[in-house]
Amino acid sequence: MTEKNYPKYTSAWLPYPMPGKAASPKDAARLELDAGLAYYGFDTPVILREEDLGEGYRIEVSEEAISIFAKEAGLLYGAFALLRDIALGKKPESCVQQPVYALRMLNHWDNMDGTVERGYAGRSLFFEGSRFDYDPERLRMYARILSSAGINTVALNNVNVHAPAQHLIDDLLPEVVEVAGILRPYGIRLLITVDFASPTYNGLSTADPLDEAVIAWWKQRTAAIYQQIPDLAGFVVKADSEYRPGPITYGRNQAEGANLLARALKPFGGTLVWRCFVYNCRQDWRDQKTDRPCAAYNTFMPLDGQFDDNVLLQIKNGPVDFQVREPVSPLLFSLKHTSRALELQLAQEYTGQQIDLYYMQEVWQEIFDLMPRNNISAICAVTNLGRDENWAGHDLAMANLYAYGRLCWNPDCLGEDMADQWAKLTYGKDCPAVDTITHMLHQSRSTYQKYNAPLGIGWMVEPHSHYGPNPEGYEYALWGTYLRADRNGVGIDRSSNGTGFAAQYPEELKKLYEDPTTCPEEMLLFFHRMPYDHVMKDGRTMIQRIYDDHFEGAEGAEQLLASWKTLEGQLPGDVFARVLDKMEKQVINARNWRDIVNTYFHRYSGAEDQKGRKIY
Amino acid sequence: MTEKNYPKYTSAWLPYPMPGKAASPKDAARLELDAGLAYYGFDTPVILREEDLGEGYRIEVSEEAISIFAKEAGLLYGAFALLRDIALGKKPESCVQQPVYALRMLNHWDNMDGTVERGYAGRSLFFEGSRFDYDPERLRMYARILSSAGINTVALNNVNVHAPAQHLIDDLLPEVVEVAGILRPYGIRLLITVDFASPTYNGLSTADPLDEAVIAWWKQRTAAIYQQIPDLAGFVVKADSEYRPGPITYGRNQAEGANLLARALKPFGGTLVWRCFVYNCRQDWRDQKTDRPCAAYNTFMPLDGQFDDNVLLQIKNGPVDFQVREPVSPLLFSLKHTSRALELQLAQEYTGQQIDLYYMQEVWQEIFDLMPRNNISAICAVTNLGRDENWAGHDLAMANLYAYGRLCWNPDCLGEDMADQWAKLTYGKDCPAVDTITHMLHQSRSTYQKYNAPLGIGWMVEPHSHYGPNPEGYEYALWGTYLRADRNGVGIDRSSNGTGFAAQYPEELKKLYEDPTTCPEEMLLFFHRMPYDHVMKDGRTMIQRIYDDHFEGAEGAEQLLASWKTLEGQLPGDVFARVLDKMEKQVINARNWRDIVNTYFHRYSGAEDQKGRKIY
Repeated sequence: MTEKNYPKYTSAWLPYPMPGKAASPKDAARLELDAGLAYYGFDTPVILREEDLGEGYRIEVSEEAISIFAKEAGLLYGAFALLRDIALGKKPESCVQQPVYALRMLNHWDNMDGTVERGYAGRSLFFEGSRFDYDPERLRMYARILSSAGINTVALNNVNVHAPAQHLIDDLLPEVVEVAGILRPYGIRLLITVDFASPTYNGLSTADPLDEAVIAWWKQRTAAIYQQIPDLAGFVVKADSEYRPGPITYGRNQAEGANLLARALKPFGGTLVWRCFVYNCRQDWRDQKTDRPCAAYNTFMPLDGQFDDNVLLQIKNGPVDFQVREPVSPLLFSLKHTSRALELQLAQEYTGQQIDLYYMQEVWQEIFDLMPRNNISAICAVTNLGRDENWAGHDLAMANLYAYGRLCWNPDCLGEDMADQWAKLTYGKDCPAVDTITHMLHQSRSTYQKYNAPLGIGWMVEPHSHYGPNPEGYEYALWGTYLRADRNGVGIDRSSNGTGFAAQYPEELKKLYEDPTTCPEEMLLFFHRMPYDHVMKDGRTMIQRIYDDHFEGAEGAEQLLASWKTLEGQLPGDVFARVLDKMEKQVINARNWRDIVNTYFHRYSGAEDQKGRKIY
Repeated sequence: MTEKNYPKYTSAWLPYPMPGKAASPKDAARLELDAGLAYYGFDTPVILREEDLGEGYRIEVSEEAISIFAKEAGLLYGAFALLRDIALGKKPESCVQQPVYALRMLNHWDNMDGTVERGYAGRSLFFEGSRFDYDPERLRMYARILSSAGINTVALNNVNVHAPAQHLIDDLLPEVVEVAGILRPYGIRLLITVDFASPTYNGLSTADPLDEAVIAWWKQRTAAIYQQIPDLAGFVVKADSEYRPGPITYGRNQAEGANLLARALKPFGGTLVWRCFVYNCRQDWRDQKTDRPCAAYNTFMPLDGQFDDNVLLQIKNGPVDFQVREPVSPLLFSLKHTSRALELQLAQEYTGQQIDLYYMQEVWQEIFDLMPRNNISAICAVTNLGRDENWAGHDLAMANLYAYGRLCWNPDCLGEDMADQWAKLTYGKDCPAVDTITHMLHQSRSTYQKYNAPLGIGWMVEPHSHYGPNPEGYEYALWGTYLRADRNGVGIDRSSNGTGFAAQYPEELKKLYEDPTTCPEEMLLFFHRMPYDHVMKDGRTMIQRIYDDHFEGAEGAEQLLASWKTLEGQLPGDVFARVLDKMEKQVINARNWRDIVNTYFHRYSGAEDQKGRKIY
C-alpha cells in the first residue's frame, strides 16, 4: 500500500488534501470538488449551478458532465455527496436531496478553561486558559468535516456556562465573530449557549423573565449580537437543571423563561433551544414517589402550546440521561404544539468514553423505529470531539460523527450501512481492513450492552467519572438514580401500579411497557421491579440471563480485540497501535463489568450460575 | 456574665491576653505567668529557677512563693501546668513532672497550594499559593497553644509531598528557618516531611538508597539544613505508600530506605520518622487472599532489628486507616528492636470531619489499656487545625487537641476528665455551660460509632470525601476495603481459618480475637464474617443489634443537638451559633447513616426490625 491510499487520520473521512480557504459555500464546493475529484481520479467535469432549493440540491448526471443545482451551502452538500459516492465506488446518479431537518446541531460541552465536560478526546478545540485558543486551519478542517456529513449548526460552549463563558455574548463577542467567520463558508452557523442569569451579571437585580428591565436587556443584547453575527442560529439554554439558574428561581415557568429569550431572537430569525433536562437533582433516596424519568414530561407537558414558535425544546433521547439502555423519551411522543429537537450524545459518557467501542447507528434506528420522524423538527448531539489528533480519542468513534451527520440530514440513511461507508471513506474503499472494522462496529453495541448494567436498569457506574462499574455507587445519592436491589429482586415498578412513568407514553406503547410479559426484555428492569427467578421468554431465569449476558459481553470484548489484532500493518500511521491500546483497556473494563455485576447480583440472589462459571 | 470571663475563642484554652514576643522558653514562661497570673487574680509570686531536668520540671509550693525548677522549655511546661491548675481552681502543689515521650508530635497534612489533605478547619495555617503565607502572630499563638498542652514537635507539610514542598529542604529552606525561629521560644521543633525521590529532582539519576551518590547527596543536604536549623527534629517520610516513591522502587527494603536518611541525620541528633502505612493500594477485589490489615506487619516485622537506632517507625493506631473502630495495630505489640511512634488522627477524616462531634479520649484509653506505654517511644497525631477562627472548624474539636497534648506528655492523664478540663480552661471554670459540654463530649464517641459502620467493619463511607455513608462505594475498588456482604452475612474472616490477620497478635490477644464468641463485639465484623442471625451476648441477633445501634445513634445525635440548644446565651461570641450549625448537620448525617446502613443490611438480610421502626 502507498501512503496516498491512506489518508492522514486528521482528515477524518475526507482523505484528499484540504483545499485552501474558501470565501463562500459555493467557493468551498468548487475547491473541494477540484481536490477530491483529482484525488479519486474522476474525470467527468462537475458543474455548479445556482438554483434555490434551500439547503437541498439536485444532481443531474449526463454522459458529458455532472451538474449540481443548488444555492450556497446546498452546492457544498451536493459536492460532498457526489464525492462520497465516488469515494465509495458508486456510479453518480441524478437525484434531488433535501435535508429533513433544518437545524442539524452539535453541542460542544467545552469550558473556557480548556476542559471538556464529558470529553474523552483531549482538551477543547476552541478554548484554553479562559480564552479562545485554536488553530484556524484545524477549525476549518473541523468545519468541512461537519459540513461533509450534513451538520450545519454548532454551539461551542458548555450548556453549564462556566466563567468566563457568560461573556461570549458581550466582552468576548468579537472572538465569537471570528469563529463564525471561519465556519460560515462551510454552511455552519453558531449557537451561543447563554446563562439565564446573565442580566444579573450586568447590573440588573433580577433575571425574572417577566421583568421589564430583563426583557429590555435581552432584546438590546440580542440585537447587538445580531449586528455582529447576522446569521447566528440562536441561543441554547440549560435552565433550572443541576444548579443552573432558570425561571423557577423567579417563580416563573419554563415557557415564560424560554419565551423571554425567544422574543429577543424573533426579529432576527433566531431560534431559542431550551433543554428539557429538568429534574430534581437533590432527591432523597428515601422518597420512593419521585421518579426521575417522569420529570421532563411532568414539567413540560402542561406547558404544551405556551411556547413561542421559535422555541425548540431539546429532549434527550431517553427520559433519564443517556444511559446504555433507555426507552425513547415520552416527551418525544406527547408534545403536540411545541417544536422539538432530539438530543443524542456522541460523547460516550456512559457508553465507554471512547475507550470502549460503541457504534450508535442501531441505537438511533430503534428510536426512529418507534418515533415518527416528524415528531421532531431538529436533531442535536453532544459532540465526541477534542484536540486529540484523531479528533475523537478513539479512531473508530468517528464513525458515530459521520453517521450522526447523515442521520440529521435524513433518517433514511439508517437503512444504509454507515459503518461500512465510514470505514471505506476513511481508509479507502479497497483497504483490506474495512470489512473487519465494519463488523467490529456492528458488534460493538451489543457487546457493550451485554457487559454493562443489565436489562435497562442503568446507573451501575462509578460516580462522577461514569466509567466502569460501581453498582451501588449512586444508590443513596441525590440524583434519583436508584436500583433498589435486594435479596428478592431489583428495579423500580414504573407501571401504573408503581410510579406511573409508563403511562406517559401513547396508549400502544404504554400497554407494551406496562406489562412485564410484553415489555421488551432489554427494557425489563427499566420499567419493572422483577424477582431474580423471573422466567424470561427463552426459558432462562432473569439472573441466569444476567450472568450469561455478562460472560458473553466480556468474551465479545475479547473477540473485538482479537479482530483488531488481525489488522496489524493494514492501517496508516498510528491507527493500529492507538486503537489496540483502547481495545486492551476495553477488555479489562469488560471483565470488571462482568465480574462486578455478576458478583453483585449473586450476593443478593444467591443463585448459582447454571454453567458453573467463576463468580467471585 | 462579663466578656472578661469568656475568652476570645481564638485563644483556645489560654484565655488571658497573649503576651508579647518571647526570646526563649524561659522568657516565654515569664511572660505567660505574668499575663496568666494577673488574669486569674493569683497573687502568690512565682519564681523561675534553673535546674536541668531535661524537658521536665519541679514545682515547689510554699506559703510565700511558688518556684518552678527546670531549664529551657521545662520552665514553660511548668508555667503552663501551674496556670492550668490555677484556672481549674486547684490549689498548686509541689510536684515533679517528666514527659513520658520525648517526641510529642503533630503532623500537618498541609499542601503549599493552601489546601489541607483531610483538613476540616479551613485552609493551611502556613501555606497559600505555593508559598509560605502566614500571620506570624497567629503562628506564635499556635505555638503557645501547642506548648501549653505539651506538644514539642511539628511537621508543617503533608506526608504526600506535593510540589513545591519538595523544595522545603533546599530553595525554600530560608522560609522554614523563619518558621522554626517563631516556634523555638515555645519549645517547639520542626520536622520536615521529605520526598524519598528528592535526589532525582536534583540531578541524580536514581534515589536508590544504596547508591553512593544518593547517600552523599542526602548527607550533604542534611548537613546544609542543620547548619540553618540546628535543632531540627528530623525528617518524616511516607514511602512506598499510595503512589509515593520509596525504596521498593529500587528493589530495596524499608530498612534500607529508612537507614539512608537516618544516617544522614545521625551526626546532628536528628530522628528519621518512617511511616508504616505501606500496603497494596491497587488490590483487585477479586483477590481474597490479600488482606490489607496484614500489610504493615508483613512488611515491617521481618525487618525488626535492621533499622538504625534513630529510626522511628510511625504506626497508625489501627492496622487499616483511622476507621471508626479498629483493633490496635499488631505492629505496636510485636516489634522488639525498633523504635515506634503511635500515630493518631485528630483530623476527623472518618469520625465526622469536625462537623459531627467526636471526642477521642476514650479511643486512646482503649489503646493504652491494651498496649503497654513502653511499647512506644513517641506519639504523633495528624492535626485538626486550619485557618478557621476557632482553629479546628468545630469549637469543641479543640478538646481533642488539648487531650492529645496531655496524652503525649503522660498517658496517665487518661485517668483524668480532660473534656471537663478543656471546657473549664476554655470557657472558664464557672461557666454554666461546662457540665453540658463535658457530658456532650463524653457522649459523642458512642453516639457516632452507633450510627456509623457497625461492629468494626469500616469503610462504608462516601469514596474520596469520606463523609457520609455509601456502603458499597469502595466495595469493588483498589484500596483493599471490602465488606463482602451478601444475603447470608457480612465481613471477612481474619482468623487463622481466614486471612490469618488475628495471628499477628500476641498469643492472648490472638486467642481473644480468633474466636467470635470471645472477640469484643464492637470488633466482631472486623475479625469475622458473621451471619445476620448470629446471636449476640445479650440475646439479640446481630442484624437487630445493627438496627438498634443505628436508631439509637441517630437519636443520640438529636440529643446532642438538644443539649447544645440549652446553652444559648451561655457562651462567648459566635460559639453557640457556630456549633449549632455543626450539630444540625450532624443530625442530618446521623439520620443518613441510620437509614442507609439499616436499609443496606435489610436489603441483604430480609430481616425485619423487631421494634417495627421505619427501614426504607
